[in-house]
Amino acid sequence: MLYDIVIRNGTLVTAAETAKADLAIADGRIAAIGCALGRGREEIDATGLFVLPGGVDAHCHVDEPPFLGARLADGFESATRSAACGGTTTIVPFVNQLPGATLREAVEDYRRKASPAIIDYALHVILTSVSPQLLGQDVPALMADGLRSYKVFMTYPGFMLDDAAILEVMACVREGNGTVMVHAENGHCVHWLANRFESRGETELAAFAAAAPVAVEREACHRAITLAELTGARLLLVHISSVDAMDQIGWARARGLRVLAETCPQYLLAGMSAEEHGQTGWEGAKFVCAPPPRGSGEAEKLWARVALGAFQLLSSDHCPYCFEEMDGKRVRGGQQPHFRHVPPGLPGLETRLPLLFEEGVTKGRIGLSQFVALTATQPAQTYGLYPRKGSLMPGADADVALWECNRSRAIRHAELHDSCDYSPYEGRVVSAWPIMTFSRGELVWNNGQLPASPGRGQFVTQGPHP
Amino acid sequence: MLYDIVIRNGTLVTAAETAKADLAIADGRIAAIGCALGRGREEIDATGLFVLPGGVDAHCHVDEPPFLGARLADGFESATRSAACGGTTTIVPFVNQLPGATLREAVEDYRRKASPAIIDYALHVILTSVSPQLLGQDVPALMADGLRSYKVFMTYPGFMLDDAAILEVMACVREGNGTVMVHAENGHCVHWLANRFESRGETELAAFAAAAPVAVEREACHRAITLAELTGARLLLVHISSVDAMDQIGWARARGLRVLAETCPQYLLAGMSAEEHGQTGWEGAKFVCAPPPRGSGEAEKLWARVALGAFQLLSSDHCPYCFEEMDGKRVRGGQQPHFRHVPPGLPGLETRLPLLFEEGVTKGRIGLSQFVALTATQPAQTYGLYPRKGSLMPGADADVALWECNRSRAIRHAELHDSCDYSPYEGRVVSAWPIMTFSRGELVWNNGQLPASPGRGQFVTQGPHP
Amino acid sequence: MLYDIVIRNGTLVTAAETAKADLAIADGRIAAIGCALGRGREEIDATGLFVLPGGVDAHCHVDEPPFLGARLADGFESATRSAACGGTTTIVPFVNQLPGATLREAVEDYRRKASPAIIDYALHVILTSVSPQLLGQDVPALMADGLRSYKVFMTYPGFMLDDAAILEVMACVREGNGTVMVHAENGHCVHWLANRFESRGETELAAFAAAAPVAVEREACHRAITLAELTGARLLLVHISSVDAMDQIGWARARGLRVLAETCPQYLLAGMSAEEHGQTGWEGAKFVCAPPPRGSGEAEKLWARVALGAFQLLSSDHCPYCFEEMDGKRVRGGQQPHFRHVPPGLPGLETRLPLLFEEGVTKGRIGLSQFVALTATQPAQTYGLYPRKGSLMPGADADVALWECNRSRAIRHAELHDSCDYSPYEGRVVSAWPIMTFSRGELVWNNGQLPASPGRGQFVTQGPHP
Amino acid sequence: MLYDIVIRNGTLVTAAETAKADLAIADGRIAAIGCALGRGREEIDATGLFVLPGGVDAHCHVDEPPFLGARLADGFESATRSAACGGTTTIVPFVNQLPGATLREAVEDYRRKASPAIIDYALHVILTSVSPQLLGQDVPALMADGLRSYKVFMTYPGFMLDDAAILEVMACVREGNGTVMVHAENGHCVHWLANRFESRGETELAAFAAAAPVAVEREACHRAITLAELTGARLLLVHISSVDAMDQIGWARARGLRVLAETCPQYLLAGMSAEEHGQTGWEGAKFVCAPPPRGSGEAEKLWARVALGAFQLLSSDHCPYCFEEMDGKRVRGGQQPHFRHVPPGLPGLETRLPLLFEEGVTKGRIGLSQFVALTATQPAQTYGLYPRKGSLMPGADADVALWECNRSRAIRHAELHDSCDYSPYEGRVVSAWPIMTFSRGELVWNNGQLPASPGRGQFVTQGPHP
Repeated sequence: MLYDIVIRNGTLVTAAETAKADLAIADGRIAAIGCALGRGREEIDATGLFVLPGGVDAHCHVDEPPFLGARLADGFESATRSAACGGTTTIVPFVNQLPGATLREAVEDYRRKASPAIIDYALHVILTSVSPQLLGQDVPALMADGLRSYKVFMTYPGFMLDDAAILEVMACVREGNGTVMVHAENGHCVHWLANRFESRGETELAAFAAAAPVAVEREACHRAITLAELTGARLLLVHISSVDAMDQIGWARARGLRVLAETCPQYLLAGMSAEEHGQTGWEGAKFVCAPPPRGSGEAEKLWARVALGAFQLLSSDHCPYCFEEMDGKRVRGGQQPHFRHVPPGLPGLETRLPLLFEEGVTKGRIGLSQFVALTATQPAQTYGLYPRKGSLMPGADADVALWECNRSRAIRHAELHDSCDYSPYEGRVVSAWPIMTFSRGELVWNNGQLPASPGRGQFVTQGPHP
Repeated sequence: MLYDIVIRNGTLVTAAETAKADLAIADGRIAAIGCALGRGREEIDATGLFVLPGGVDAHCHVDEPPFLGARLADGFESATRSAACGGTTTIVPFVNQLPGATLREAVEDYRRKASPAIIDYALHVILTSVSPQLLGQDVPALMADGLRSYKVFMTYPGFMLDDAAILEVMACVREGNGTVMVHAENGHCVHWLANRFESRGETELAAFAAAAPVAVEREACHRAITLAELTGARLLLVHISSVDAMDQIGWARARGLRVLAETCPQYLLAGMSAEEHGQTGWEGAKFVCAPPPRGSGEAEKLWARVALGAFQLLSSDHCPYCFEEMDGKRVRGGQQPHFRHVPPGLPGLETRLPLLFEEGVTKGRIGLSQFVALTATQPAQTYGLYPRKGSLMPGADADVALWECNRSRAIRHAELHDSCDYSPYEGRVVSAWPIMTFSRGELVWNNGQLPASPGRGQFVTQGPHP
Repeated sequence: MLYDIVIRNGTLVTAAETAKADLAIADGRIAAIGCALGRGREEIDATGLFVLPGGVDAHCHVDEPPFLGARLADGFESATRSAACGGTTTIVPFVNQLPGATLREAVEDYRRKASPAIIDYALHVILTSVSPQLLGQDVPALMADGLRSYKVFMTYPGFMLDDAAILEVMACVREGNGTVMVHAENGHCVHWLANRFESRGETELAAFAAAAPVAVEREACHRAITLAELTGARLLLVHISSVDAMDQIGWARARGLRVLAETCPQYLLAGMSAEEHGQTGWEGAKFVCAPPPRGSGEAEKLWARVALGAFQLLSSDHCPYCFEEMDGKRVRGGQQPHFRHVPPGLPGLETRLPLLFEEGVTKGRIGLSQFVALTATQPAQTYGLYPRKGSLMPGADADVALWECNRSRAIRHAELHDSCDYSPYEGRVVSAWPIMTFSRGELVWNNGQLPASPGRGQFVTQGPHP
Repeated sequence: MLYDIVIRNGTLVTAAETAKADLAIADGRIAAIGCALGRGREEIDATGLFVLPGGVDAHCHVDEPPFLGARLADGFESATRSAACGGTTTIVPFVNQLPGATLREAVEDYRRKASPAIIDYALHVILTSVSPQLLGQDVPALMADGLRSYKVFMTYPGFMLDDAAILEVMACVREGNGTVMVHAENGHCVHWLANRFESRGETELAAFAAAAPVAVEREACHRAITLAELTGARLLLVHISSVDAMDQIGWARARGLRVLAETCPQYLLAGMSAEEHGQTGWEGAKFVCAPPPRGSGEAEKLWARVALGAFQLLSSDHCPYCFEEMDGKRVRGGQQPHFRHVPPGLPGLETRLPLLFEEGVTKGRIGLSQFVALTATQPAQTYGLYPRKGSLMPGADADVALWECNRSRAIRHAELHDSCDYSPYEGRVVSAWPIMTFSRGELVWNNGQLPASPGRGQFVTQGPHP
């Protein structure tokens, strides 16, 4: 048999294992992995390289409506291009409910926005208001069509649902074998604390983190777990930032509840907390995200939880607000940033995998297979994209990244491919980076070249969870 | 010196100690305790009796507005009479906010209702809605006047406050060195579960408890603790029914938070859960209260926590709805009770101390001093009524009960003194009962006689907590 | 390329993934997995079958010296035959220290006993006494030769080491990047309790379990963890039977300690506790093992922990004492068994995988990949046998089992292949069983046939853990 | 009635309450407390003073055999004199087993040593070896005679008992309604760590603490709790130094086990850990005790546990080794202290109460009543000395201390009354000190005067615990 592509002599890494072997691609799919496989029309020498399933970034914000008046910098073209250059081959951004439109219309509208995608994508749906029509008709219909993950917020005016609404969402999503993603921070508490800081004139950026202390996340996690316990919903707590929150999850699991957890690079790296980066002026706005990073001590403890398997997935929470737009001179008129006016969110699609590889694998906190599990296989399995995505097994989509692991380079935003205008990771040195990325057997990133065309990315439906 | 009264040769019990001694009363106060004290105008032989501070029942409902259309059976005369006959000398019922009236007017209105009181009373205030005027002016003014305990509900339509309001209440009460009492059940969850049972036609009384499972209390406790942690408020979680809730409190305390906890006889006795009493028709309505009793296994575990000092006070949560009014034929028209139509609450002012003495002291779960601490001294100290109340020390109000501890009697509602028409404890046998109760040196219960007149009871102000 | 064997159209299952594909074997190794692979000299149709890595049973007792005077029923021939028929392709039994011999001599002696093995094996070493020579010279030398796992006992006269000795063992094994396996029960406590039962004349078999309550295992786990914390040793707690013990492990992990845990079918099945099987006479001796099974409630909770990933491996703890030898008439002379005279241990090599498949996979408690991870891949990885063992990846030994999963059969000891004379699982119905087992590409079990010859099994060395 | 002594207008403090009142003494006992009590032959104006029960120091070492060759500095005369000057009126030191003598002979021998006592004393017994005769005959006989507390060590060569022996002691002491005190550190671990430091040449004093890390105490506590759980013994864990150990105790209590806990000033004060006092030469020897103080962060957390009621008693663990004897030039010949040659123990009988008053009451961590409970009433109740000791209630021994609370003084060993030659608390400033101490109505400390004669102290027997 003549394969389309054979990647020779690489070190294949799956979510559980590692093997020196060839990988053959045919018809956009993994055809075989083995020793001395037959010829390919194209042969690639991967000696000395790691051959990984392309990453699945299951939490990123692309082309959503503005938040606090700030627009997301990336549309689908730049977002998927950036992802591909960082070894990611599937993204899962969020559909928002639109005023005056049905949920299906919102999905269709968003899929139009997604048309220039370079790699494949699935979709989560954010629910910011509920109604009998929505939960009785619209969501069940969309679940049947492969949109099975619904995100709710316990914070943010305009997004925040009360427990009554969350219970209804959970009961509905459970019926369709879907997953409820929860942004777990108690919005009432954040609001009360923020008011207090503001009333005292403490409006500098440090107040952003101070208004969302760990207790606020811990409480919301406990509550979300309780709501899931009562409804039987499959719960995924996103972007967990603290050990206290993980203790709540651990406690729930020990009682037999299945609770899934995600964290992100910003919570696993030193130097990301307001105290540690020490940037108090506009420069500090580059680090504002919610929940706030808790400092290197907490990060180290979270790595210990990652190593133990307490997290199921590591995502970017890519949420790119241009620094120039956040800048007070142009947008807000202020000389100093006010903690309530900076839209929370960091760009990170392209840097997710190299940063996690560096901090996790290179520094010995986790193994290579665990890296693949957390960034590709388990995200795909969690959201019903498996076995198409996140896998090197025969039959899977040939989404593959070849990683070079022994060359140091500093992250420079100028060399990244998103449409944001900064990276909060500027200057950090990593020793591994994907030099080739294949999406369904097509080369989409080739060590500086971007050979693929916008529009080739496909929508992927989510199957029901087991 | 000639004392007014000398009680001779009893066994005096304080919150920490026990001593065989005389107790002398003068001018309505404890004048001395000692061996061979001087003469009294009146001498009482207490040989073989225990001499305890009169009980302080810091959680009872008297003459409040109707709930679910049901009226409380007791006004102040019958409530305080009943209390006195059960060895209690101070009660702390609740003022409700009144529509169209200021909070001070509501307090004054309620104090008018209290005018026939036979024993002394302090007042808690229930806050069911908040405003800048209320929290900025009214509550601070009342706190300065000695109303320092404010109760909020996390459940019940019309009572339930959201977290934003509770945060405001906590911040306000903290300023005045007061205490926030919280009824901790997640009302959204109870409502959602109740709807689910109702929609399935499961309307029998067992659904009342099933709609308020332990998880609902545990979650609300965790949340209330978090709100107190953020505001610095002094938090008292009332009528705790479950070990899971106590675990939340224990966890908070181990982290340095001061959280107070109360439970009640209905959660410490076997046979009070729907499953255990097995009454499914109208008879079962006699046992409906919120939170629901969890059964004898849980009760036994709660006793272990009581013994360890995890609870600060044991109250009755006396909330007397006449059975005849609950009866479907007269009030609701139904042949069978519907779980949502039975007003939750049990009478218990008079039986609190004898039941707790029996289950606690007689059965060896706690010592006599601990009994006094939990039912008299600590309630008084917790709510700023000490050293006037809850004490046998010189200078304290001569609120004293003489207990006879070796004569079995069965509880019969016919022999009790409240205005309700049943007791959920009917037929239970206890071996100890107060045979004399003094209030400020005046005999108000004398083994079957009620020598005191309505109206002698006084309002007691609460001092700030230390 | 012409492969030796191609297994077509099966469902391949790895420790993380599942794929419908072919599997090709060449030179005793996995050559490739893929779609439509090239021809094999031999072709096997696996349509409808699951193709799994052969099981690795990392805890079994074969041909050890007698214990309590009772001989183990299985030598290597019957043990490995039985294992192969149950889908296991690697076993790891225990070398004992021998009186008057060096540790190396004991290993060599034991390898001679192992010569009739049908499948491959690695070796653990049990240390029952320590000396500077042993820990300074002998153990380091053996570790360098690939014997890297050392087991110590915290119980059993003659086996039990005190903490001082365990600390020395741990420090020594840590130096060689090895693993310390601990049988965690406090032997002093077991002995004291057993004495107490005996002194009261309570000698029936139920006393065996009563003398080793959960507290005894929990304490020993906590202590072993502490010793590992101080020495930095890699600790594996074997045959954990209780949630309380797992809570100790979970607590340690949350603090950043890496502690590995194993359990066995006897602790995961209902009906294995003395109370549940209800056999009080000699029949009960078939269920005596240490630690004792705790009943179906505990088993269910342990499954929840298995599902969460709290255990790294599931082993048999195969320890076959012939029932006829245990029988009082022949061996002990008693009419009734005495709890101290029954040697603790159950046969289970052949039934391990089918029972765990049934209770775990068929009943939906874990997924197929998790089953493979726990019974093959992770045991191999834990003990340094990977990537040779426990894997379907190219390059691994072609140790493969083909499972038929939809045909019910009852376990009958008469149909098993060990040399014991009973199975404690007699009559239990399972729906999956391996119908072909390959060891290094050679068919060793073929649906009733045993085509392989004794002596073909090889010794496998353990690599250092990462 | 004419009393012997009337102490007027002081603030009386009991374990639960506070009252401004007079206290009358007659026949060496408290005759009455009250307002305007009758005259006394002697009248003392206590206006502005606190009137407390004399302290009960239930853990101190006096005139025991040498340890590590070092002699205790205090015999009974100086120890009791020092105690009285610090407001303590009862001490409970330890009888040691003597070689070649029965336990009763050892007790009698020790009571001879106690003959010069100035205040009363009870006795604990340290068991360092067990035998059927000892536990079957001697201990039961002594318990019947009022020696009901037995201490065992889990560390120290020559003292350390293994679990088998501790189980036997516990079972025996339980039979007599006594208490088992446990010094909980795992001696095997301490020894192993100490050896390791020594073998590396790290022999400076910092190694003393490093060889006894928190894990070693935590483990021993868990184990002691388990042994008590199995035997049903009443367990008191002495001189607890860490929150981790308290967490073990808290966990046990939450499961219904009654475990008592003690800590000491050295674990509650900042500046006592090797790291904090920073003394590495001989000066550092003044701070060596076991377990080692953990630093001010841990001390602060322990105070939080004290405030919560997690400890039952606060003792001194007075163990006075003269600095001049520890000095290498005279005793050991070394120029620098070796961590294994410094006898662990600190003097502290006289400073216990003022230091705890300062750090606890003055700094607002606990209330006055809690101070009395922890240092007088509960120690007396715990060891069966109540109601004679630790009480101001009528009938109790008139052991009373009058405290002056608003005059700062620095602790100077030159002004203390023990026979040691230093205080580890030299220079610390306290604002409260007892100015008069009465023992059974006799003034034994009068603001600088010591009016009482050696030999007046009496032996007090312990009653059985309830």
